[in-house]
Amino acid sequence: MKREQTKLKTKAKAKPESGSKLKIIPLGGLEQIGMNITAFEYEDSIIVVDCGLSFPDDDMYGVDLVIPDVTYLKDNIDKVKGFFITHGHEDHIGAIPYVLRDINVPIYATRLTIAIIEHKLEEHNMLKKVKRKVVKYGQNINLGAFHVEFIRTNHSIQDAAALAIYSPAGIVVHTGDFKVDYTPVYGDAIDLQRFGEIGKKGVLALMCDSTNAERPGFTMSERTVGKTFDNIFGDHQNTRIIIATFASNVDRVQQIINSAHKYGRKVVVEGRSMVTIINIASELGYLNVPDNTLIDIEQLRNYPDEQTVIITTGSQGESMAALSRMASGIHRKVSIKPKDTIIFSSNPIPGNEKAVSDVINDLTMKGAEVIFQDVHVSGHACQEDIKLIYSLVKPKYAIPVHGEYRHLIAQAKVAEQLGVEKDNIFILSSGDVLELDDKKAKVTGHVQVGDVMVDGLGVGDVGNVVLRDRQHLAQEGIIIVTVTLEMGSRMVVAGPEIVSRGFVYVRGAGGLMDEARQVVNIALDRFLDRSSNEWSKLKADIKDDLGDFVWKETKRRPMIIPIIMEV
Amino acid sequence: MKREQTKLKTKAKAKPESGSKLKIIPLGGLEQIGMNITAFEYEDSIIVVDCGLSFPDDDMYGVDLVIPDVTYLKDNIDKVKGFFITHGHEDHIGAIPYVLRDINVPIYATRLTIAIIEHKLEEHNMLKKVKRKVVKYGQNINLGAFHVEFIRTNHSIQDAAALAIYSPAGIVVHTGDFKVDYTPVYGDAIDLQRFGEIGKKGVLALMCDSTNAERPGFTMSERTVGKTFDNIFGDHQNTRIIIATFASNVDRVQQIINSAHKYGRKVVVEGRSMVTIINIASELGYLNVPDNTLIDIEQLRNYPDEQTVIITTGSQGESMAALSRMASGIHRKVSIKPKDTIIFSSNPIPGNEKAVSDVINDLTMKGAEVIFQDVHVSGHACQEDIKLIYSLVKPKYAIPVHGEYRHLIAQAKVAEQLGVEKDNIFILSSGDVLELDDKKAKVTGHVQVGDVMVDGLGVGDVGNVVLRDRQHLAQEGIIIVTVTLEMGSRMVVAGPEIVSRGFVYVRGAGGLMDEARQVVNIALDRFLDRSSNEWSKLKADIKDDLGDFVWKETKRRPMIIPIIMEV
Repeated sequence: MKREQTKLKTKAKAKPESGSKLKIIPLGGLEQIGMNITAFEYEDSIIVVDCGLSFPDDDMYGVDLVIPDVTYLKDNIDKVKGFFITHGHEDHIGAIPYVLRDINVPIYATRLTIAIIEHKLEEHNMLKKVKRKVVKYGQNINLGAFHVEFIRTNHSIQDAAALAIYSPAGIVVHTGDFKVDYTPVYGDAIDLQRFGEIGKKGVLALMCDSTNAERPGFTMSERTVGKTFDNIFGDHQNTRIIIATFASNVDRVQQIINSAHKYGRKVVVEGRSMVTIINIASELGYLNVPDNTLIDIEQLRNYPDEQTVIITTGSQGESMAALSRMASGIHRKVSIKPKDTIIFSSNPIPGNEKAVSDVINDLTMKGAEVIFQDVHVSGHACQEDIKLIYSLVKPKYAIPVHGEYRHLIAQAKVAEQLGVEKDNIFILSSGDVLELDDKKAKVTGHVQVGDVMVDGLGVGDVGNVVLRDRQHLAQEGIIIVTVTLEMGSRMVVAGPEIVSRGFVYVRGAGGLMDEARQVVNIALDRFLDRSSNEWSKLKADIKDDLGDFVWKETKRRPMIIPIIMEV
Repeated sequence: MKREQTKLKTKAKAKPESGSKLKIIPLGGLEQIGMNITAFEYEDSIIVVDCGLSFPDDDMYGVDLVIPDVTYLKDNIDKVKGFFITHGHEDHIGAIPYVLRDINVPIYATRLTIAIIEHKLEEHNMLKKVKRKVVKYGQNINLGAFHVEFIRTNHSIQDAAALAIYSPAGIVVHTGDFKVDYTPVYGDAIDLQRFGEIGKKGVLALMCDSTNAERPGFTMSERTVGKTFDNIFGDHQNTRIIIATFASNVDRVQQIINSAHKYGRKVVVEGRSMVTIINIASELGYLNVPDNTLIDIEQLRNYPDEQTVIITTGSQGESMAALSRMASGIHRKVSIKPKDTIIFSSNPIPGNEKAVSDVINDLTMKGAEVIFQDVHVSGHACQEDIKLIYSLVKPKYAIPVHGEYRHLIAQAKVAEQLGVEKDNIFILSSGDVLELDDKKAKVTGHVQVGDVMVDGLGVGDVGNVVLRDRQHLAQEGIIIVTVTLEMGSRMVVAGPEIVSRGFVYVRGAGGLMDEARQVVNIALDRFLDRSSNEWSKLKADIKDDLGDFVWKETKRRPMIIPIIMEV
C-alpha cells in the first residue's frame, strides 16, 4: 500500500506543474440527502457536477422542494463553463430548471439523462433557453482549463456515468451514484478497466458514493430481482399482480415486463412520473417491450385479473401516488380486490417507513396479499464494491460524497483501511473550499451555501421567519384580536373582536373566549386611561396579557395577533 | 388438529351453561399502535383490560397524546367493576389518569406495574382518588361475573402478565405483550405450564400479541444482549461508553450495570423517565446494583472517561431526550467527546427511523463511534413463540391483538396453520362487539370509539376542525383582512388592513400586499354600492377574490380570514 502511494506521488511530480491549485467546492448535498452539486474551479474556469434538489424536511411546512443557493456561481458567472450531470435522478438534476435560469451554460450528460432533463426543461418552458449536449461513454469534453471524460457505471437508472475530471492540478474521479453490476439488465457492466487505466495515470482525488458505505459485502445484481419476479409470478398464477417500484428504474420495469410476458400477462403502467420515464426510455430504445404486452389502463376490464400486471408508483407510500390512492380507495381506475397480490419492489427511504407501513395496512385491510421483503436490490455500492473502486483508482486524496454524515465517515474508514493516509481523507461540508494539488490539500475557505425553499411559484421567498410562523401556527393555532379606536376621544368604537383558528373550536359564545375578551378590555381601558398613543405598547400589552391568560387556562401558546385600527 | 378441536368442543359443552354470551369489545388499539383497552362484558359485569395512550400521528399538529373515547364505559358505568393492567408500558397504562377521573373503579396489576401507575397518578394528583390492588401471579380476582387470574409472562418490562379471564360463557386468555424467555434476567420464565393447564380446561378464545407475527423464528432471550454488552465493553476499554435504551427496560439497565461492574466502570443514569423507573425498580428490589457502582451525574468529572458508563434515554431520537440533547450540544451536563463509544440498544420504532438517523449523524459529527446494530432483542413473540402459545392454549376462537392490521392478519395465518378454523378467527376493529359462547361467535354491533386528543390542559377540545385548520395554517399560512365600516353612511372608516403570517415575509410595503389591498377595496366598493347588509356575502367575496388573486400570483392557498367591524 505504502509503496503504491510513493509511486503515485512520483508520477504526479513528473507532470508539468502549474502554480495554481484545483478548488473543489460542494455547494450542497453534504448535510442532507439530495441537492447534489459540486463546483470544480481552476483559475478562470469553473465546471459544475450535478444540479439536484432535495425534498423538504418534516418541519419545512408547506415547502414543495429545496434547491441549492448558488450565489457563488452567480458571483463568478463569467468563469462558469458548463454543467456535467452524472445521471437522471431528481437529487442530481432537479434544480436545473431553477439554477439554469440565471446561469445559462450548456449541460453535458449521457443520452437518457439528457432526455429526462429535456422533459423537465419543457415542463418549465425552458427548453429553448438551455443548451444540452449528449455525451457518450469514453468521450472527452474540453471546457476551459478542464476536460471531462464520461465513464460507464451501473445504478438504479440507466446511462449513469462517473466522471474523470482532468485539470492541470491533477485528475479527480467522481463516481456519481453507482453500483458494480457484472450482469446488468440493459447495457454493459461498469467500465472497471477504464477506472484502472485512469488510476494508473495517477489520480489526485476520488469522490466516491457513500450511500451504502455502512453495509458490508457486495451489492447484488439488478438481474437477481428478475429471478424473484419469476418465482412470485409462478406462485401467484391465479391473482392479479400489482407491483410498486421507483418510477425511474426502467430495468426493474423491464424485468417485470419479461416475467409478465413469460406468464402471459398484459402490463399496465400507472402513475404520472412512471409513465413519463417509461415513454422516454421506450422511445430511446432502453426498454424492450414484446408486442401486445403493454395495454392502456382503460383496457384492464377486458382481461381477467390473472392475466394482468399493474406497475405503479407509490413504493414510498407517497400520499398522492397511484398505489396510495388505490390503497385508500380513491384511485379512479383501479380498485384493490381481496385476491390481489401486491409487491413492493423497493425499500423505504429513511423517513418513509411509517407511510409505507400505512399503505401496507390499507392494502391488507382490503384483503390483498402484500409482499414487501427481498424484492429489491440497491443501486449503490456496498463496502466491498467501494474497496474495488479505491483499489482501481488509488487516489492520493479521498473525498467521500453522496450520503449522510455517518455514511461519509463509514467510507472514510474504508479508505483508511485501503491505505489512503488519514490526513488525505476529507469529510467536507457544503460550502467548504478544498484547494488541492499533488503536494497538499487543505480547506482554505467557505462560500455561501444554503437551502432555497420552493413553495408554489415562490423561489426563496419562504425563509426562516415564515417557516417559524408556520411551525407556531401548526402546533398552537392563532388568536386574532381586532379593535377600532377613535384616538381623539380615546374611545373604542368597534370590537374587540376575537377570532381563533387551530386553537379551540367553540361555536357561539364560549366561556374561554368571553373571558379572553375581558382580558383584552382591561388592557384597552388601561391604555386609553393613559395619554400614550404608542400603539406598539398596546399591542404588546394585549399579546402579553392574553398570552398569560391562555397559558394559565390551557397550557397552550397560540400565536396572538392584535390588530388596532383607528378611525 | 381437527380431533383436538372436537375434543375441546365436547369439554366446553360439559360445563354448566348459562344463557348469556360474553361480549368482547376492544375500545382502542386496533387501528393504531398503542391505546390498548378492551372491555369484557357479561350480563351486568364489565371488566376492562389495559388503559393505554397512543402518541399523535405526524398530522395531529400540536397534540401531546391521544387517549381512547370511553363513552361506552361511561354509559355503562354501573356495570364497570375494575381495570386489569397487563404491564407498565404507556400504551397499556398511559390513559389511566384521564379515564379513571370519570370511571372510578379499582385497578389490579402486578407489583411493579402498580408502582409505575402510582407514580403516574401522583403526577396527576390523583393518587388518593384511585384504588389500586397489587396482584401476584397465580392469584385470582373475583369481580362480578368474572374471575381473573394473572399468569407470569416475559416482556421488555418486568412483572408482565397474561390474564385468564373466566366467565360463565368460557375462558378467555389474553397474553398482553409478551415474549417467551427461558432465561430471563430477572425472575422466572413465562409460566408455560399454566398456559397448558388452562388450555386443558378448554379455552374459548385466545387474544394473543401480534406485534412480531410477521417475523419467522423465535425471539432471543434478553440475556443475549448482556453477552453483547460484555463484548463491546471488552473491545472499548479506553473510551467512555454511553448507552441509550428504553427507559422502562430495567433488565437491560441491569445488564449494563453488570458489564460496567465487571469492567470497573461507574454508572450514571440520565434522562427523567429512566431515572423515575430505575428508582421505582430499585426500591422494589427489581434491580440489583453493586455498592459504589451508581454515581450522580455531577460526579462524572471525578472519574476518567474510560471508567464511566452513561445509560440514557433518547434511543428513539426523541428531540428532547437526554441523548438527543447531548448530540446537539445542548445537554447541560454531558458533552460528547471525539473518543466516546455510543450504543443504541434499541431498534427504531416505525416512524422514528429518520429521527434516530439524525441523532447518529450528529454524534458522528462530534467524532464519536456509534454502534447501533444487533445490541437489542425484541420484547415480543415471533411466529414460533406464537405457535407455542396456541399449541398450549388451543383456543376455539382466535382474536389477534396488539399490532397493526398487517400484524393481526399475519397472526391469523399462523392460527389457521395451527388448526383454528378460519371462521373462528376474528380480526376486530375498535368498537366491534364480539358476542361469543362455546357454540358461536359473531360481531353483533359497534359502540362509539375514537381518538380523544390531549393538548396542554385540554382533553378532547382539539377536534377535527381544529386539526384541519392547523394543517392548513402549517402548509399555507394565513392572511387576515380587517376593515371597519359605518353602515349608516355605507363608508369604510378604517382599513382595510392586511396582515399575514407564515405566508410571505415582506418588510414594509410589499408589492403583493399592496395589490391584495386593491383587490379587497374593489370587493368593498362593490358591496357598499349595493344596498345589501349581508356581511357573510362580503366576507365570502373577500375570501374568493383575494384567494383567486393570491393563487394566480403565487400558486398558494393561504387561509384567508376577513374580519368586518361596524361602528
